[in-house]
Amino acid sequence: MDSIKLERRILSRNDVLAGDLRDRFRARGVAVLNMVSSPGSGKTSLLERTLGGLSEEMRIGVIEGDIQTENDARRIARTGVPVRQIQTGGACHLEAAMIAEALKSLQWEDLDLLVIENVGNLVCPSAFDLGEGARVVLISTTEGDDKPLKYPAMFHSAHLMVVNKIDLLPYTDFSVDTAVENARSLNPDVKVLRTSCRTGEGLEVWNDWVRSFVKSRD
Amino acid sequence: MDSIKLERRILSRNDVLAGDLRDRFRARGVAVLNMVSSPGSGKTSLLERTLGGLSEEMRIGVIEGDIQTENDARRIARTGVPVRQIQTGGACHLEAAMIAEALKSLQWEDLDLLVIENVGNLVCPSAFDLGEGARVVLISTTEGDDKPLKYPAMFHSAHLMVVNKIDLLPYTDFSVDTAVENARSLNPDVKVLRTSCRTGEGLEVWNDWVRSFVKSRD
Repeated sequence: MDSIKLERRILSRNDVLAGDLRDRFRARGVAVLNMVSSPGSGKTSLLERTLGGLSEEMRIGVIEGDIQTENDARRIARTGVPVRQIQTGGACHLEAAMIAEALKSLQWEDLDLLVIENVGNLVCPSAFDLGEGARVVLISTTEGDDKPLKYPAMFHSAHLMVVNKIDLLPYTDFSVDTAVENARSLNPDVKVLRTSCRTGEGLEVWNDWVRSFVKSRD
Repeated sequence: MDSIKLERRILSRNDVLAGDLRDRFRARGVAVLNMVSSPGSGKTSLLERTLGGLSEEMRIGVIEGDIQTENDARRIARTGVPVRQIQTGGACHLEAAMIAEALKSLQWEDLDLLVIENVGNLVCPSAFDLGEGARVVLISTTEGDDKPLKYPAMFHSAHLMVVNKIDLLPYTDFSVDTAVENARSLNPDVKVLRTSCRTGEGLEVWNDWVRSFVKSRD
């Protein structure tokens, strides 16, 4: 089918560009995270709560991906960290070419950590490498613990799964154990953290994970 | 660009098929809902809670769309309503051709109401008409009240917005008024309901909406 052939061509072009980005990031010692999740799982909130503190220890930059609005970039800018917003204007995921374009206006070569917040979508971003060193998938406790099985490509490709909004656990049927078991059935080595941006629980462990990720690039 | 041309061709082929489905549904007096939302907003739970009761008054069938798993079809089957699962195997949305295929094994001509539960994705399903009479978008109170602005195509194309999980309102910063205002800035006529599948609040109003939607097809 035409559409499958074309999709492969687009993906393979993206892979080439992503490989090039990865080489550039490595050469300059920039650690890069690609953060993915459903809409509203709390990617921006997690960054809001932790970037301010982390930026006292390391140089951080952020690229925000959204279909529409600059809301997230405005929220991140308040932490004092430099941020660029990509508005995809309908596209359901970020692509390596969009990152390459955003880098032109960001002093990325001097960063220790570049965080890319992808479009809220548990499907399409899984197929698009952005040259990141690690992919972080958030799942919030209100989404249901079956989500890894229903969106396998995303959970299969993640290095870290952050179970967010654990403050809401008492009000849901979500089982963290089941979610972890489901994720590890697809991805046995995936690391798991539990966080709440409301109570602050787990944020220091997240910060530690980020620190050690940045350190591992050395 | 090739990809844009091809996307237009796929969309226009889908529109032709969807138009054909719509004609078939109308000719047989079948009211059709296309339910869309983020992953985990509660589409299946809403159907689980209400189909059993509604099916005592009308003939209902369900088509479930998921990337992977038959979990949702199993949940719906327990309500006693006939259900078919489409596993898209990676595709991020349902298309009219998939619905046409699923109809072959469903006695759809005898139904009063066909409910199509789309893949959990606030982006891609918005572009694919399935021949439905109304599109219902769910937004859960844990996702943030800015979601209509960030995923405008979906909220622009919806006939009804269901604000679900209102039992969790006390534990979130979500403002129903802001969500409604944001949705109506894109779609002034969108009808809004508030539901909780845990407490049952709003489910009778949802049932009434479904009844009047089914009646409107006559």
